[in-house]
Amino acid sequence: MPTPTDGTDGTPGDGGADGYDLRHHGDAEVRDDGGVLTDLAVNVRAGTPPAWLKATIAASLDGLAAYPDGRAARAAVARRHGRPVAEVLLTAGAAEAFVLLARAFAPRHAVVVHPQFTEPEAALRDAGHAVHRVVLDAADGFRLDPAAVPEDADFVVLGNPTNPTSALHPSDVVARLARPGRTLVVDEAFMDAVPGESASLAARRDVPGLVVLRSLTKTWGLAGLRIGYVLAGAEHIALLERAQPLWAVSSPGLAAIEACVTPDALAEAERAAAEIAVCRAYLLARLGEFDDLRVAGTPAGPFVLVELPDAAAVRERLRDLGFAVRRADTFPGLGGRWLRIAVRDAATTDAFVEALTKARSTRDPEVPEVSS
Amino acid sequence: MPTPTDGTDGTPGDGGADGYDLRHHGDAEVRDDGGVLTDLAVNVRAGTPPAWLKATIAASLDGLAAYPDGRAARAAVARRHGRPVAEVLLTAGAAEAFVLLARAFAPRHAVVVHPQFTEPEAALRDAGHAVHRVVLDAADGFRLDPAAVPEDADFVVLGNPTNPTSALHPSDVVARLARPGRTLVVDEAFMDAVPGESASLAARRDVPGLVVLRSLTKTWGLAGLRIGYVLAGAEHIALLERAQPLWAVSSPGLAAIEACVTPDALAEAERAAAEIAVCRAYLLARLGEFDDLRVAGTPAGPFVLVELPDAAAVRERLRDLGFAVRRADTFPGLGGRWLRIAVRDAATTDAFVEALTKARSTRDPEVPEVSS
Repeated sequence: MPTPTDGTDGTPGDGGADGYDLRHHGDAEVRDDGGVLTDLAVNVRAGTPPAWLKATIAASLDGLAAYPDGRAARAAVARRHGRPVAEVLLTAGAAEAFVLLARAFAPRHAVVVHPQFTEPEAALRDAGHAVHRVVLDAADGFRLDPAAVPEDADFVVLGNPTNPTSALHPSDVVARLARPGRTLVVDEAFMDAVPGESASLAARRDVPGLVVLRSLTKTWGLAGLRIGYVLAGAEHIALLERAQPLWAVSSPGLAAIEACVTPDALAEAERAAAEIAVCRAYLLARLGEFDDLRVAGTPAGPFVLVELPDAAAVRERLRDLGFAVRRADTFPGLGGRWLRIAVRDAATTDAFVEALTKARSTRDPEVPEVSS
Repeated sequence: MPTPTDGTDGTPGDGGADGYDLRHHGDAEVRDDGGVLTDLAVNVRAGTPPAWLKATIAASLDGLAAYPDGRAARAAVARRHGRPVAEVLLTAGAAEAFVLLARAFAPRHAVVVHPQFTEPEAALRDAGHAVHRVVLDAADGFRLDPAAVPEDADFVVLGNPTNPTSALHPSDVVARLARPGRTLVVDEAFMDAVPGESASLAARRDVPGLVVLRSLTKTWGLAGLRIGYVLAGAEHIALLERAQPLWAVSSPGLAAIEACVTPDALAEAERAAAEIAVCRAYLLARLGEFDDLRVAGTPAGPFVLVELPDAAAVRERLRDLGFAVRRADTFPGLGGRWLRIAVRDAATTDAFVEALTKARSTRDPEVPEVSS
């Protein structure tokens, strides 16, 4: 069962209490490799952005001299989720949304449910707020137990599906975390990779204090463009908007947002989600060949979290063999035995499993044998 | 001489104390015109971005799936200004820089020197800080008198050259505003439109507490891309960086930054600045034909501020005649008699002056004559 812990000392800005490097992200694992590594570290869908989307973005460059005008894109997002425009805020990626939330709200008792993406906690701490960690239990598949969140928490952050555990919490269980006077932030950055977005709360206007974050960068391969949005009650959105710089999303970003929420784009995302499910099933089947490798829970995202002996050394050997996977020891609640692996096509998975087999059988020449 | 006034009530977030709409910007004057107005309201250089720059940005779209990596662009900006990388922060336009400054610093006594761009004051107020206005005097050409800034101000914001007055303050006069324990923010968003950047403090590492903001969007026609940067001491930069969202500048933005600080680009900007000076001289000569129109001070930026009777009605008539100019009554210290006019080529200026002549001779049919 989950453990409520006071995992931090409340000092703002150190970003790395307990030795966790909250500011480590998957892109650092492939940034300086000269493009030679096969990337299973970053959760952006392979082969993206599609050509039609890139063409739309390229066409927007003709209007670069003008200041961004976000009205059409905001209206398009509102239509896509069946909400009024006043319940939508476009942001420069989910990363900006976390900073706006930390700036706009003054939580007395902020709780972050871990393991999860570390930016929400880092942003809260940088804004001077103490953060209380609730750590879900690996033995329980990182299942969400609403009772583990302290009753007096007035600001709760949760990922669904969760990065890096790939756990998908049922929407009714998540909604049970809502309370009058509590802001409930649900990071749905990977929800569009779940077929039917089955556990999404994006359209739920009846949940008090609910703030849903969405990203368009993973499914559409636009991590370089910084686009996402927030869905919440109009009062919450107004507070966030006041904390946001003018013209926060660039004109190419706005063009992309509009293009990614059309019915055709949603249908394409749904097909991609179905394909991810098939590819993930294959990855899980292949990982099942390793006796001492354990997959966390029931993965529902475009990545899986695995526990294995000697994970840090295996990760290093995988790099030598041409494959980047994401270290997971930077996530509170996880340790050096965990790695996050992106779901890719079957051929990539086969090549990866072959490398993993080698990486696990190779003795590390750097570690001398100790004779007793 | 300048008047120190407590122009605001210190209430954060209303953004419009004293009836000034601090959140009005020139882009609103041309946003919904269907493209039919000749734009003298927005201070972006006409005919931009140049084709070579647009091609560079278009090429960057191939890398959109990857997260932005700002290291090369940051190093390029540092080289361009002869400063260490730790003294540079790339931002999503100057607008983001103002928000970061307001978030990262906790001024006890913030002073904004007006008339100037209103975002710095709006951002300070939205972050909960009271703002003290020092209003420069129109009769004195909006000349900066350092003695008008209260000695105990620990945070001072100034534009140079100033939007909307087009006043250029000598660098040594501006530097005299520096004090130990004071953060001196100089917004140089339009400095690259001044030949030789003669009054820039960008390279001055000896001025204590100096923070210089720069923009690349006006000279290069990239208002839609959101790019700018901050130059300051390493401790100030570290504070600002901590308040900034991850990956704040998009990959296309980073490509543009790198491209705009090469020696070739600087030479092109310098030629553009010389051309602006010629075009401005012509505009001023033509405006001199109007007896009761007065130009503020000695304009040094790519726009001029003018005072004329019945300015609001003239502006409306100019719109009917196909020309957008910027209302100036939203700037603290100015009133309904002022308009801001962008410097354009001679042909555009001639057409504008013709329209202005008509706009001033036309009696407004909406205003019935009063017979006594």
